[in-house]
Amino acid sequence: LQKSDTRSPQRAVGCRCGIDVHSHVVPSRFPGRDDPPDAWPSVHSVDACHGQVMIGSRPYRLVSDACWLASRRLEAMDAAGIGLQVLSPMPELFSYWMETAAADDLIRYTNDVLAALVQEGAGRFRALAGVPLQDLDRAIAELTRVMALPGFAGVEIGSNINGIPVGHSHLFPFFAEAERLGAAVFVHAVRPAGSERLVGPAPLQQVLGYPTDIGLAAASAITNNLLSRFPSLRLAFSHGGGTFAALLPRLEQGYATFPALRDSLGESPSQQARRLFVDSLVFDRDMLRQLVQIFGEDHVMIGTDYPFNFREEAPMRRIEEAFEEARLRDRLTRLNAAAFLGLNEICP
Amino acid sequence: LQKSDTRSPQRAVGCRCGIDVHSHVVPSRFPGRDDPPDAWPSVHSVDACHGQVMIGSRPYRLVSDACWLASRRLEAMDAAGIGLQVLSPMPELFSYWMETAAADDLIRYTNDVLAALVQEGAGRFRALAGVPLQDLDRAIAELTRVMALPGFAGVEIGSNINGIPVGHSHLFPFFAEAERLGAAVFVHAVRPAGSERLVGPAPLQQVLGYPTDIGLAAASAITNNLLSRFPSLRLAFSHGGGTFAALLPRLEQGYATFPALRDSLGESPSQQARRLFVDSLVFDRDMLRQLVQIFGEDHVMIGTDYPFNFREEAPMRRIEEAFEEARLRDRLTRLNAAAFLGLNEICP
Repeated sequence: LQKSDTRSPQRAVGCRCGIDVHSHVVPSRFPGRDDPPDAWPSVHSVDACHGQVMIGSRPYRLVSDACWLASRRLEAMDAAGIGLQVLSPMPELFSYWMETAAADDLIRYTNDVLAALVQEGAGRFRALAGVPLQDLDRAIAELTRVMALPGFAGVEIGSNINGIPVGHSHLFPFFAEAERLGAAVFVHAVRPAGSERLVGPAPLQQVLGYPTDIGLAAASAITNNLLSRFPSLRLAFSHGGGTFAALLPRLEQGYATFPALRDSLGESPSQQARRLFVDSLVFDRDMLRQLVQIFGEDHVMIGTDYPFNFREEAPMRRIEEAFEEARLRDRLTRLNAAAFLGLNEICP
Repeated sequence: LQKSDTRSPQRAVGCRCGIDVHSHVVPSRFPGRDDPPDAWPSVHSVDACHGQVMIGSRPYRLVSDACWLASRRLEAMDAAGIGLQVLSPMPELFSYWMETAAADDLIRYTNDVLAALVQEGAGRFRALAGVPLQDLDRAIAELTRVMALPGFAGVEIGSNINGIPVGHSHLFPFFAEAERLGAAVFVHAVRPAGSERLVGPAPLQQVLGYPTDIGLAAASAITNNLLSRFPSLRLAFSHGGGTFAALLPRLEQGYATFPALRDSLGESPSQQARRLFVDSLVFDRDMLRQLVQIFGEDHVMIGTDYPFNFREEAPMRRIEEAFEEARLRDRLTRLNAAAFLGLNEICP
């Protein structure tokens, strides 16, 4: 890896080696279904390059064909200096709120679309599968199935499962299996808490609700000692862990103050935070530096939300603007992601 | 004001002139009531110096007599270098969830206890009243009453009023009146959103729920342009604005991305944030510096949560450890609070 050239930060990293752990896929079509559940998705073509995603009869999001076309994604990756992109379902496709058998069919279908994209990508894609976590047995079965397929590094799961926070003991059997299988677990905000406190247009759910819910999810992992229970689990949180960075000092002080918290937490919150991975999707230099301070130089990695509108356009430059040191940049742009994903070879 | 002596930061500020805008009062007793509502409070003596606060039949919090004794408070203020302490009701006494007539009686009683403490304090206390915001007319009537009493600088209100966020248009008539009367408005977390996402012992509601709710409250003030609508309103948020610091960069990016947000917000979120006051109650040097960056050198002021267990013990030292410059320290420890409170004379 060469020392970066600050005049042209996008191209500065020697090879096109950035790894983006946070990008989404929407299949270009979904199978029809007799008597589909309310939230069954479909995609209606809008023009040559865009589709309207419907959740049942509700227009959900207008998306570009980069959601399903490998070629579009590879072009964008080349332009942004991203060598490897990790594909995961658009979170609304988690379908935790859907009747289990239908959700299971939908999620398996989406995972098979991810598998096909991985094949098309000629080594430049990996995948994180969806799993129907409203049914732990089925979720574990699907996790086992995808981990035997080429290119799957683990799973993407919601920050809450129908309101159950990620750190809740109910989910321990799933985490035990993920740990056993060596599956990376990427936690993504979905159907967030606090939505009833938002005043303004609909995008505020993504803008403010998502970081709120992922922050509480990361906190729940810590207050229930998830990483002490599953020490080999590789667990990451989207959107830089959201509000967790702002919650941590108060959680640390609470741990020092309340006997009930001191007794229930083994390690201090700050120590535990250093076992969690987060992505870099915070749109801010100072906050990115704060993430590295909190989670450690070896636990922050690129996330972009590609190809949605509300995304990080220049993930490599964002890191290079915040950090001078070549070795640290290398960690943040690819080595940490490789460790999270369990990759042996880094450069595709 | 002398340059501080770093060997003895607590005593370094020339006079005992720190102003603490965030401290709470619990009356030593509450009036009895025929057929009291479910949440009617009482205090049961536990020992010579402590009482058990009950909310109805539910033990709510064990508190020290510093909650109601001026002499205890003045001693603690002297020890911490605090010249002026702003008294406000323990938030559970807001009683927004109580039948209005009973809540109104309770809040007037509590405000009268605050008024009596102000008298006892010989100039070293100011008060922020409670108001029954479940009924805007009664709230405005009580605001008008207390603003005519000696020592009242304004009101303390909840981050949400039975779920209605502070920025909601429903509350505009109240803010219009607060602005007209020159009443400072201190927004304190209460009955927080996200409580259903907490995994662990009860104090997590205070530890994680409070900053989550106050963060969303501050965001709602911005997304509904509260300070553009009421430009002379002096509005502050407890706990350093909670998670707002972590939400702001994403809100700023959302404002740049979504036309719906750009259209509904006049000024950018970052610009609007510089009109809000916050207290310093974040227990962390770096986060305190971040607050000054976000809200401005003239909008951060001391808050301690005195006399509860979970509080800032050394507010002056916290600021002196984070900031070198004498003029800035002076602002953060007292001048900003004086501006927020509308005080003419600063040193008691």
